[in-house]
Amino acid sequence: MNTPLYQELATKIQGLIRAGTFPSGSKLPSVRRLSREQNVSVTTAMEAYSRLEGLGLIQSRPRSGYFVRPPIVTAGQLPKPSEQSRKPITVQYPQIMQAVIEAVANPRIVPFGAAAPGDEIIPHKRLSTLSNALIRRHGAAAFRYSMAPGRKELRAIISRRMLSAGVQADPDDIVTTQGATEALALALRATTSPGDVVAVENPTYFGILHLCKDFGLNVVEVPMDAQKGISITALEELSTNYKIAACIVQPSFQNPLGSCMPDDTKKQLVDLAIARDFALIEDDLYGELGHSGPRPSALAGFDKDGRVIQCGSVSKWLAPGIRVGWVISRKYRDEIRRLKAIHSLSSSTLSELVVAEYFAIGGAERHLRRVSSLFGEYCAEMREAVLREFPAGTRVNQPKGGFVLWVEMPEKYDSELLSIAALEHDICLIPGSLFSASCGLKNCLRLSCGHSWSKRSAEAIRTLGRLVTTCVR
Amino acid sequence: MNTPLYQELATKIQGLIRAGTFPSGSKLPSVRRLSREQNVSVTTAMEAYSRLEGLGLIQSRPRSGYFVRPPIVTAGQLPKPSEQSRKPITVQYPQIMQAVIEAVANPRIVPFGAAAPGDEIIPHKRLSTLSNALIRRHGAAAFRYSMAPGRKELRAIISRRMLSAGVQADPDDIVTTQGATEALALALRATTSPGDVVAVENPTYFGILHLCKDFGLNVVEVPMDAQKGISITALEELSTNYKIAACIVQPSFQNPLGSCMPDDTKKQLVDLAIARDFALIEDDLYGELGHSGPRPSALAGFDKDGRVIQCGSVSKWLAPGIRVGWVISRKYRDEIRRLKAIHSLSSSTLSELVVAEYFAIGGAERHLRRVSSLFGEYCAEMREAVLREFPAGTRVNQPKGGFVLWVEMPEKYDSELLSIAALEHDICLIPGSLFSASCGLKNCLRLSCGHSWSKRSAEAIRTLGRLVTTCVR
Repeated sequence: MNTPLYQELATKIQGLIRAGTFPSGSKLPSVRRLSREQNVSVTTAMEAYSRLEGLGLIQSRPRSGYFVRPPIVTAGQLPKPSEQSRKPITVQYPQIMQAVIEAVANPRIVPFGAAAPGDEIIPHKRLSTLSNALIRRHGAAAFRYSMAPGRKELRAIISRRMLSAGVQADPDDIVTTQGATEALALALRATTSPGDVVAVENPTYFGILHLCKDFGLNVVEVPMDAQKGISITALEELSTNYKIAACIVQPSFQNPLGSCMPDDTKKQLVDLAIARDFALIEDDLYGELGHSGPRPSALAGFDKDGRVIQCGSVSKWLAPGIRVGWVISRKYRDEIRRLKAIHSLSSSTLSELVVAEYFAIGGAERHLRRVSSLFGEYCAEMREAVLREFPAGTRVNQPKGGFVLWVEMPEKYDSELLSIAALEHDICLIPGSLFSASCGLKNCLRLSCGHSWSKRSAEAIRTLGRLVTTCVR
Repeated sequence: MNTPLYQELATKIQGLIRAGTFPSGSKLPSVRRLSREQNVSVTTAMEAYSRLEGLGLIQSRPRSGYFVRPPIVTAGQLPKPSEQSRKPITVQYPQIMQAVIEAVANPRIVPFGAAAPGDEIIPHKRLSTLSNALIRRHGAAAFRYSMAPGRKELRAIISRRMLSAGVQADPDDIVTTQGATEALALALRATTSPGDVVAVENPTYFGILHLCKDFGLNVVEVPMDAQKGISITALEELSTNYKIAACIVQPSFQNPLGSCMPDDTKKQLVDLAIARDFALIEDDLYGELGHSGPRPSALAGFDKDGRVIQCGSVSKWLAPGIRVGWVISRKYRDEIRRLKAIHSLSSSTLSELVVAEYFAIGGAERHLRRVSSLFGEYCAEMREAVLREFPAGTRVNQPKGGFVLWVEMPEKYDSELLSIAALEHDICLIPGSLFSASCGLKNCLRLSCGHSWSKRSAEAIRTLGRLVTTCVR
């Protein structure tokens, strides 16, 4: 079989980038010009660029064309693999939690705290236009109750979109929620009872730990690799020693590690869940936010047994405050519908219509590509700054998706002390102890890079680097 | 002291109405004309009408003037006082529940099921205009997370509005929610633990029973009077026999009875709660929907001890699908904030801004007066139709606020059978058993009259009256 023409062309351009003909950050010829200069069709030229974009070598910017991506920084070591629980424990709240949570909501502060996108990411004018059109179309019906399972329009398009993650979900297996937190709460309620043991990633998003604690669940922490995610061997061992009711994972671009489970690990995880009969809750909040290349397969796509409950939302890339999320499960569908009706009755009808329309005709895919690529740049900038400003020996993850950095400082440094000192300088960050069920990980911290990189950000990282030297245990 | 001029004038007009000079439904002279004809100031004329409106004798219709109210039907007996639990029980779900809940969400069906306002009640164009203006003003910030306790603008205006119910609440004692269901769930979580006993009204809104069941709470049912609400004597007896953790009441225009607790009963209830040390959860969802006259005082206004948790929302008169509610409590404030953050993280920012603006400058008070009066008319029409079409001996409540009717048929009739038969005729109603923790009240049913009365409604009541004769136990 001959190499397709577009692939030949892509290889040629790749060579020119390596040779420095097109240096990092430079603009590439337009598709029309490339087609003319290389004597190929416009389609072939586009396919070549598309391939290079998939490889993460170039990036498209709306209305500007294609650019050579800055090389991904590979200096700096990744965080070390984390530890495994000896036995199930009740989640502990670090004392500092309340102060951190309050600071997160403070809009004046340097926003390295909340994992929220910056204002420049939110297409508020588009949302306003869609909202007007939908109120005109539906009239008062846009403000009626939207009882569980939620608006059909939204469930249908979520079902179509999940195909790209390898998941075949019937719209009737989807229940819409008011954000992913409600989705996770419903999934936990549907699969566990107080006193049960839940396996969580270590570190994991603190919201998951808080839900477990509030539902009276005990947790076992499973070690994580900063690139490949959860350790199946460790989970297998834990599930031999303890009856696990459910395991919550973020297979794609984990918060806070940014890790991405390889496909064969996903398959192993599903097989283990079947063998040991526990439910799998997939938090897919960041699944669509890969900085380049195709969307990772979802865990749910490897599940022939119906035991994966998938949770998602648009909070991280469209609008945090629009409160639209979903939970997908065939097996637990009826129970989840029932629980949704009992605990929040209805979701916001207009918000559901707006998000459905944004997916259908509003430009969601283009927006996703643009913002994911931006998040990649924000992460790279911040990572470089941290490696430059923080004490020697500091390790930082290198996420290929999402927009949080996990910083592991040498053992003697204390991120709780750092976060107190940082608040005095109007900088918010989340200490590692919030991501640990046992308040461990005290030398780690999470920095959110959802906001565009600025002089203020650079100065804040410099300040943190200076402050940390005094935050020794 | 002399009788004020406006009061003299009001008494004079009242006489003319009684004498038939102004028959039921007729238009009254305009304020200007009245002032001219009676030789009084425009202010006095307005005050006279205002007084008559307060007495429920006349009603204003926007842009049309004042009209003589149809006499309130007093024929037909009220439902009998309900029964008291012997001991705490787990809430039972009637088998028919799922079928009813599904039918409630069906938009094609005659909507006597859900307690939702008709489309003509929802000012969707106004909401759209406000929404546009707010997005222009706030930009992307209108779509940021709105973390607990929620937007300050909304909390401030709720605090101001509660003054008219005799409640002084600091904006910081308010936590916004996504509707009253979330508010009730937070209030229950903050005040109870699984296994606790909660006192509920009998009958009570089924959503409250479902929450109790799902939280693992046991309930004792307190007898209700169709006009005066909960029996303090019975609650006192129950609280002597059992340790009660919380009592949930709807003091103003109870769902489904429409009862309104007299002020001295409210005071007694607060005193009893202090003496027996239980929390009081006030569901004030219908508090602003009195068909005429001033707003009833809220239970929270009689509370010097901070033990009343008040829950409210705009779902019943502004927009069910906008999902804006609140919970007010000084004592449990921190715990409620914490729980809100854990279980749903954020509310819809734009929805909160829109509702705050609607309260501030959008015409909320005028709209409330108009729709409350309409609900009064809808209730009167339906009540008359039920008394005409249902078997002899049927009793119907006579709500002075809200928009639900509670129909008590002679013992031999079964409302579960009726609701199945009704669904075959595309009519939805809620059988009494859903309002009872023990699936009792089988000869009762709730009819929602939130939609404007129409030929279709009249025919549906006629059909129900015909069907019920075959629904005998």
